[in-house]
Amino acid sequence: MSNAVNRRWLLAKHPEGLPDSSCWTLDAAPLPEPGPGQILVKARYLSVDPYMRGRMSRRGNYAKGVAIGEVMRGGGVGEVVASRHPSWKIGDIAETMGFGWQEWSVMTPGQPGPDGVNRIDPSLAPIESALSWLGMPGITAYVGLIEVGRPKPGDTVIVSAASGAVGQLVGQIAKLAGCRIVAIAGSDEKLAWCRSLGFDEGINHRTAGSLPAALKAACPGGVNVFFDNTGGPIHDAVMRTLAVGARVVICGRIALASRYEAPDVGERFLGHLIVSRATIAGFLVFDWWHRREEALARLAAWQRAGRLRYREDVLDGIERMPEAFLRLFSGENFGKQLVRMVG
Amino acid sequence: MSNAVNRRWLLAKHPEGLPDSSCWTLDAAPLPEPGPGQILVKARYLSVDPYMRGRMSRRGNYAKGVAIGEVMRGGGVGEVVASRHPSWKIGDIAETMGFGWQEWSVMTPGQPGPDGVNRIDPSLAPIESALSWLGMPGITAYVGLIEVGRPKPGDTVIVSAASGAVGQLVGQIAKLAGCRIVAIAGSDEKLAWCRSLGFDEGINHRTAGSLPAALKAACPGGVNVFFDNTGGPIHDAVMRTLAVGARVVICGRIALASRYEAPDVGERFLGHLIVSRATIAGFLVFDWWHRREEALARLAAWQRAGRLRYREDVLDGIERMPEAFLRLFSGENFGKQLVRMVG
Repeated sequence: MSNAVNRRWLLAKHPEGLPDSSCWTLDAAPLPEPGPGQILVKARYLSVDPYMRGRMSRRGNYAKGVAIGEVMRGGGVGEVVASRHPSWKIGDIAETMGFGWQEWSVMTPGQPGPDGVNRIDPSLAPIESALSWLGMPGITAYVGLIEVGRPKPGDTVIVSAASGAVGQLVGQIAKLAGCRIVAIAGSDEKLAWCRSLGFDEGINHRTAGSLPAALKAACPGGVNVFFDNTGGPIHDAVMRTLAVGARVVICGRIALASRYEAPDVGERFLGHLIVSRATIAGFLVFDWWHRREEALARLAAWQRAGRLRYREDVLDGIERMPEAFLRLFSGENFGKQLVRMVG
Repeated sequence: MSNAVNRRWLLAKHPEGLPDSSCWTLDAAPLPEPGPGQILVKARYLSVDPYMRGRMSRRGNYAKGVAIGEVMRGGGVGEVVASRHPSWKIGDIAETMGFGWQEWSVMTPGQPGPDGVNRIDPSLAPIESALSWLGMPGITAYVGLIEVGRPKPGDTVIVSAASGAVGQLVGQIAKLAGCRIVAIAGSDEKLAWCRSLGFDEGINHRTAGSLPAALKAACPGGVNVFFDNTGGPIHDAVMRTLAVGARVVICGRIALASRYEAPDVGERFLGHLIVSRATIAGFLVFDWWHRREEALARLAAWQRAGRLRYREDVLDGIERMPEAFLRLFSGENFGKQLVRMVG
């Protein structure tokens, strides 16, 4: 460890529109030292998630943005290599959304909220699950669908980015809730996998031709719950297909990333909303962090019972963090995108 | 009565955009005859309401549209002049949303829902109240605010078309719920009257200059509940002023009447929704008709206690029905628009 350096990705510029690889620089810093009550953690997996686009914005959004020259924001899971905290020991596995895009991170256990440090039991599931179905994306899917989408048995639930980190789980939880589930995704391979998870119908938004016609065919009784991870043309088309009393969960808007700093201009749906008496709700998982334990317990139980499957897409090496992140915008990722640390 | 004719307004054409007086023709038909179980009612007041724009549409909306040559849809209150129903007698006062733009109407008491016939007690309030604060607009304000807006004490509640049939009541009910209430209206006279009802702040959207700046000044902590009767530029500006967890009630969109048949293109607010975790809900009072008695009882009690005031804007003569209706779109009406029958 004495010769080790901490490679870390610093924000180099705020993107206008879609980010590209020039937005970050790879830096090498001395290893950080844990102070009293702190632990030093060596990353095993880092996460890339769509919310990071917001943190790259000059103005931030619901949270402060990352400043130029700061370590890029992100979650990670790794092994405790030094501890000055009484209840953490070397070899423990720690996860936090406050890890950062870096190989090593000093953490202060005992803080509440998403940046708090969680102890991960590696006997329950592969440790990277804590960044995926058994972590923030899983909580997002569980709370967003159950509390905001409020699915009822017999509902038709449609999910955009259905094979993604959140979408794949939303569909399966909706199936457990007795719903008919419809996937929207960007390739036939992704849709085939969605069908293997139990999705009843699938729409390839790149090849469907008329999206409204495909939606009408897949949802003849209209859409009761729309769990939207993308925004953009998919959102617009589904909004025309809402059943009376529909619930629309605005979870993400990755299709609008290129318009992030500019107004999103297009058709609005106030008339459709009155006619359908639908509800559109913006949703942020961090408001529901008090439900984390409940969500993870349910997800773990379903997974153990063989009723919840998941797919991760893993790249190797911290060098590939920007590439991994940018795959979210092109839709190249297939399942939850992770980066495994090597060496 | 033997020489009487039934003057009635028939739909002459479906408007494209804003309706004008060429959309209807005044017809004179023989008096209708009540059949068994029916009553004949002579109108005393007829109502004009924004929802009627939807009924003029070729495609209708949540309800079937009026066909060319049919009597225009609308509510009315009047006196029973002939009865073949055992529990209705001559001189009773009847109200129904199924009256139509006509002087006489045959009704079948005992049907459920908004087209049902209600017996009005003229000792409780002026009978025209049944078309106004003690009728559909009152129920709209009560249920829309309480159940969809869910005001909490200390909330800032903003109301567009605040001096209108619904808006004036929404503000006063929000005040009763312990909220700070902000009016948006189109004239200083309307705002002065809103202040006399208890509105804490007022914005004249025609003279405010920068609506976003005026909103920021009037709602420094953001908007918790936005009861939207207009859509359009007012809607767009308020959407940028939402507090975290805001509820937006889409009750009407009269400012978009000229775009009724065309897509409403403009800025969308998915990002704002995620950041504010706000909810937008389309609201239709007819879904809540089972709450009619509760709403009317509360409204009547508040009015008797001097805690609910209202304003009506009355034109005389069935000839003026189109004019009265079109005033809703120009904003010329000041309070609930009614037409009193003469002769």
